[in-house]
Amino acid sequence: MRLALSTGGGDAPGLNAVIRAAVLAAVNRGWEVLGIKRGFAGLLGEDDVVPLTRESVRGIGHLGGTILRTSNRGNPLHYLRPGPDGSPVAVDRSDELIANARALGIDAVISIGGDGSLAIAQRLHEKGLRVIGVPKTIDNDVSGTITTFGFDTAVNTAIEAVDKLHTTAESHDRVFVMEVMGRDAGFIALHSGLAGSADVILIPEIPYDIDRVCEKVRARDRVGRSFSIVVVAEGAFPVGGRASTLGASLPGETIRLGGIAEALARQIEQRTGKEARSLVLGHLQRGGMPTGYDRLLSARFGAAAVRAVAEERWGHMVALQSPRIVTIPIADVLASPKRVDPQSDTVLTAREMGISFGD
Amino acid sequence: MRLALSTGGGDAPGLNAVIRAAVLAAVNRGWEVLGIKRGFAGLLGEDDVVPLTRESVRGIGHLGGTILRTSNRGNPLHYLRPGPDGSPVAVDRSDELIANARALGIDAVISIGGDGSLAIAQRLHEKGLRVIGVPKTIDNDVSGTITTFGFDTAVNTAIEAVDKLHTTAESHDRVFVMEVMGRDAGFIALHSGLAGSADVILIPEIPYDIDRVCEKVRARDRVGRSFSIVVVAEGAFPVGGRASTLGASLPGETIRLGGIAEALARQIEQRTGKEARSLVLGHLQRGGMPTGYDRLLSARFGAAAVRAVAEERWGHMVALQSPRIVTIPIADVLASPKRVDPQSDTVLTAREMGISFGD
Amino acid sequence: MRLALSTGGGDAPGLNAVIRAAVLAAVNRGWEVLGIKRGFAGLLGEDDVVPLTRESVRGIGHLGGTILRTSNRGNPLHYLRPGPDGSPVAVDRSDELIANARALGIDAVISIGGDGSLAIAQRLHEKGLRVIGVPKTIDNDVSGTITTFGFDTAVNTAIEAVDKLHTTAESHDRVFVMEVMGRDAGFIALHSGLAGSADVILIPEIPYDIDRVCEKVRARDRVGRSFSIVVVAEGAFPVGGRASTLGASLPGETIRLGGIAEALARQIEQRTGKEARSLVLGHLQRGGMPTGYDRLLSARFGAAAVRAVAEERWGHMVALQSPRIVTIPIADVLASPKRVDPQSDTVLTAREMGISFGD
Amino acid sequence: MRLALSTGGGDAPGLNAVIRAAVLAAVNRGWEVLGIKRGFAGLLGEDDVVPLTRESVRGIGHLGGTILRTSNRGNPLHYLRPGPDGSPVAVDRSDELIANARALGIDAVISIGGDGSLAIAQRLHEKGLRVIGVPKTIDNDVSGTITTFGFDTAVNTAIEAVDKLHTTAESHDRVFVMEVMGRDAGFIALHSGLAGSADVILIPEIPYDIDRVCEKVRARDRVGRSFSIVVVAEGAFPVGGRASTLGASLPGETIRLGGIAEALARQIEQRTGKEARSLVLGHLQRGGMPTGYDRLLSARFGAAAVRAVAEERWGHMVALQSPRIVTIPIADVLASPKRVDPQSDTVLTAREMGISFGD
Repeated sequence: MRLALSTGGGDAPGLNAVIRAAVLAAVNRGWEVLGIKRGFAGLLGEDDVVPLTRESVRGIGHLGGTILRTSNRGNPLHYLRPGPDGSPVAVDRSDELIANARALGIDAVISIGGDGSLAIAQRLHEKGLRVIGVPKTIDNDVSGTITTFGFDTAVNTAIEAVDKLHTTAESHDRVFVMEVMGRDAGFIALHSGLAGSADVILIPEIPYDIDRVCEKVRARDRVGRSFSIVVVAEGAFPVGGRASTLGASLPGETIRLGGIAEALARQIEQRTGKEARSLVLGHLQRGGMPTGYDRLLSARFGAAAVRAVAEERWGHMVALQSPRIVTIPIADVLASPKRVDPQSDTVLTAREMGISFGD
Repeated sequence: MRLALSTGGGDAPGLNAVIRAAVLAAVNRGWEVLGIKRGFAGLLGEDDVVPLTRESVRGIGHLGGTILRTSNRGNPLHYLRPGPDGSPVAVDRSDELIANARALGIDAVISIGGDGSLAIAQRLHEKGLRVIGVPKTIDNDVSGTITTFGFDTAVNTAIEAVDKLHTTAESHDRVFVMEVMGRDAGFIALHSGLAGSADVILIPEIPYDIDRVCEKVRARDRVGRSFSIVVVAEGAFPVGGRASTLGASLPGETIRLGGIAEALARQIEQRTGKEARSLVLGHLQRGGMPTGYDRLLSARFGAAAVRAVAEERWGHMVALQSPRIVTIPIADVLASPKRVDPQSDTVLTAREMGISFGD
Repeated sequence: MRLALSTGGGDAPGLNAVIRAAVLAAVNRGWEVLGIKRGFAGLLGEDDVVPLTRESVRGIGHLGGTILRTSNRGNPLHYLRPGPDGSPVAVDRSDELIANARALGIDAVISIGGDGSLAIAQRLHEKGLRVIGVPKTIDNDVSGTITTFGFDTAVNTAIEAVDKLHTTAESHDRVFVMEVMGRDAGFIALHSGLAGSADVILIPEIPYDIDRVCEKVRARDRVGRSFSIVVVAEGAFPVGGRASTLGASLPGETIRLGGIAEALARQIEQRTGKEARSLVLGHLQRGGMPTGYDRLLSARFGAAAVRAVAEERWGHMVALQSPRIVTIPIADVLASPKRVDPQSDTVLTAREMGISFGD
Repeated sequence: MRLALSTGGGDAPGLNAVIRAAVLAAVNRGWEVLGIKRGFAGLLGEDDVVPLTRESVRGIGHLGGTILRTSNRGNPLHYLRPGPDGSPVAVDRSDELIANARALGIDAVISIGGDGSLAIAQRLHEKGLRVIGVPKTIDNDVSGTITTFGFDTAVNTAIEAVDKLHTTAESHDRVFVMEVMGRDAGFIALHSGLAGSADVILIPEIPYDIDRVCEKVRARDRVGRSFSIVVVAEGAFPVGGRASTLGASLPGETIRLGGIAEALARQIEQRTGKEARSLVLGHLQRGGMPTGYDRLLSARFGAAAVRAVAEERWGHMVALQSPRIVTIPIADVLASPKRVDPQSDTVLTAREMGISFGD
């Protein structure tokens, strides 16, 4: 068996631990393992496929990043090439990719990536490539699995940041608005806000009313709590629509400059008269050493993916359905992304503890 | 509603976060909350019951320990009192406890504790006290719940320690034996050993053969890996029985002095000729700031316990059955403690990655 | 002796540890201690002075923030009051402050603060108040002392962030520009950049040339290091002047939106064609638990300040001149703020290791 | 110039950062660099000398351990060899070492190590080898330098441990005795005990009286502080002598089993009736990622050692005399090891804050 591994999309703590586990589990079965560099780009004429041995994965289990690197250009279905007029044109190179994989004698591919990579994996699977998926999403927005590696690390990074802001906020009677990742799913904001004792949590799944947010800040003031912490997912938006409201209330400014955190901080400062500051956590959430939870889950995912190869569960991805690791069809997963359920006990817990969602 | 909270047994990171969540959730319902000090001792003539308000729980969500303190003396079913000859005698003071609770107008009790405390809670429930349980165990040995608060923190503490030993072991060509908690259940050893890239993991659920352990150390030596890391649960024991073997192989010494880690280090040093050192993590695993995972789970457990009170689910405890929090009868939980399943995918993953269980 | 403590200016990890040490040392001498709330505002009619006892400082040694809180409004020399037309007018209320201190029977004041607070302390000292200073600056820009508390914590926070960016940068072939504090002094950028293996460090003391910065990025690319990390102090500026260049090169944009990190990222992306991202660490650097170094230094400063009171060294501040704590006249300190010496061995070390300062 | 590097003695966080800085600084000067494996053993017939390039030191700045490894067998002055009767005999192989170094064309050696390694370096220097020293000691017991790398990391590890014990101690009304490194010098115990708010600190420089220790525990009990934390250096001993007292009070037991921490815990439990537990931090203090302070100091030491080579300061070691790095004769350093000064302001601070040294 000649197995190939690929990592695609944004960085997530635990990628190297998945690679390490898969390589060790495969090598211990007597398989040969190859690493495709930069997503699938390594199979697209860039000719960048390297052997992965026990030596290659030594001591990488606790390192962030991916030794295979990743790429935003490597989508074989929409590969960007300079067109006749010089501007990039997307071409489908999936047949070429499959041919190259065959030429290299690759029997199966483990594709580690987010919804984008999983969609590619599904398409390649449909075209005959033998693929197993490993879900990767910092946002926890892939369905079918309780969680994925990287999410726990991101949440802990965010909690650490909230903890740091807390003492300053309290000493200075300030409002802090902290922006975390989550374009469509507010799990990082919800988990870090609840664990970090935020006062307001704003997520894409629950549109907010800025008046309610300010009312919470004022209510705290009235009982002597003259500071507040707002944790906001980057994709949160006010009631009435994503596009219009922020722009309308802050004419002459685009969200791009400053982001939602800065916009909210200004709105709160204007309306409550309290000093408000913003912080954008950004890429800090994607980097660094994975937590114990993520290191363990990554190892289990990596080994389970090799088992799925042995069992020929092509077109499936590994998933955590606690306490077990299972495999489920990638097609099912892609059909319905995961979102925060506003009726979930976690949201309910936050509300019962007095945290406002701005609704 | 006048609700009382109690924390019993050994320390676990997250206790204060449970208390905080329960108090806020109860106060926000308009309930009155009392804290029973030192397990149940506060209701046994020590007259140590304090009001718990929003103020009492301010800023405690990320602190280790319990503001209610705990006790090894407070078991009302076997309360230790000086007997006629001065030596302690156990008496059943459960009726007195229930009477005292009624005299204080306590309508319900949330008992946060391990199997010992849950057994007490069950007995008090059978005698008519309205009790809801919240499971607490650093070892993860309570069944019916995927995990409990404190366990993730303990595992991370153990992983951090393994990481530290790794670099020294490698630089010095040494064997390190690290002992973690787990008298009957090896979850901490399994999770930290796997996530921390240990070479050998010894747990109570899989008796070990010292020859197999030493063979693993030697096999690594032969391929140029001249160091090894052994993670051992305190309750691990060799094939053939807990009591005899260690004593036999190390005459004149008791396990009490030095513990299993030191005993193993000497055996490995004698048999392989390699320098071996031991480390006992001990109470480091019970203390400190809870991880994000534990802070979140604690909040959910605390709020869910208050919901269980509102729903009058007496004699039940809250439990995590991912992704939901449920309630299950305490009696069911006590009937079958949780142990590492040697067939679980986590054990399988470790084996596939080349980790030895000494069997 | 009735001693009063005050904390002023921005937050810095270790403030509470200074307070704790000073209170314990004073109380153990049999002194009475008062805490002035919100800088000096507590003595200016806001009537906010509280007794500080052994109980008040229990368990605060490792907490960020200050239990005395702080304020930007409390400068008694330029106290902001609504003027006749409603806009704020600065008035000198130092005489009132001294009178209030005397009315409260305050014998001496320990003023913990940055250059602003020290200047106030000096002025009050000149007017007859008995003052001892404790220097506080996250930027390490106070002269006369090797370092001050809070700086080590800020540097470690910045290093942790650089470490996180590193793995993502390498996996994605990206340039990351990380902005740290340091309006006039580049110590945080220098120390975190050097310890964090940055490729470029930009500080106010060494004006940079954007072409040199880009040349470093390209030079790395040429030898296969297709990512770069730039650490920039907020006050860094290009050769030719602070005000003009950035504005000129990025017309239509103010630095205010996005800051120097974002501006640099765009310039680098435009000139090198490499994907570049920015991150502003901001208030994360001021918050959280102090490091061991800062906890120790804070304790030594707090106790030394009490000793300075006992020795009546009015108008002096405590300072670290390793390995000793000394006292030096505040007036001397104010005369010459500390800056990074471009000839220092730390800058030299960075250069010798191949780090560029963009000059 | 052909430069060789060697690391000797016990592990210390920062060794790799020193190596990295020295290699980069030397390579950037156009020098060739060799690494001697396992202390000086690599030059003693084991023929283990490897080239060190920019590639060799990539990404090692934040890793614990040493890529050159270390050894307890490599002392060329007392090299252990099997004697005629099989038992080891020490022989002086320094001439052989120098001859081998010359044969390899080595022009100068940077020896990174503790007092043992520095003594070897000094002897080799006297015999004509061109040597520069870099001091390494986890205990901070090398004189002439304010501190060395690794010490700050060890202190932070110890403080983290004290913090963890604190919450458990308080919740359980317990005494914890924590043992840290320091056979002859009590700096780790002093710094971590003071920063970690210990109640008792026992160090070799101040012999203790067990009655005074117990009196402190009881005094705390009387004012309602029913727990205590004792931090003890491994080399602390009671008034009256190292050897006798402990043995006398605990007949039938050797210190070897359990160590001073366990012995103290039993004495305190017996005398005060309070539950007492012990913890030995051990090798945790030598491992792991260096702190920012140590990473910076290591880089400065590594680069300064290369500068010292360029300046031909043979027989000198680099040293921190804040804020500068200087070089001082190794012979001077060896003459007087550093100890805690019982009159230092740090000890005084601890006393003033109410911490007992048991004297």
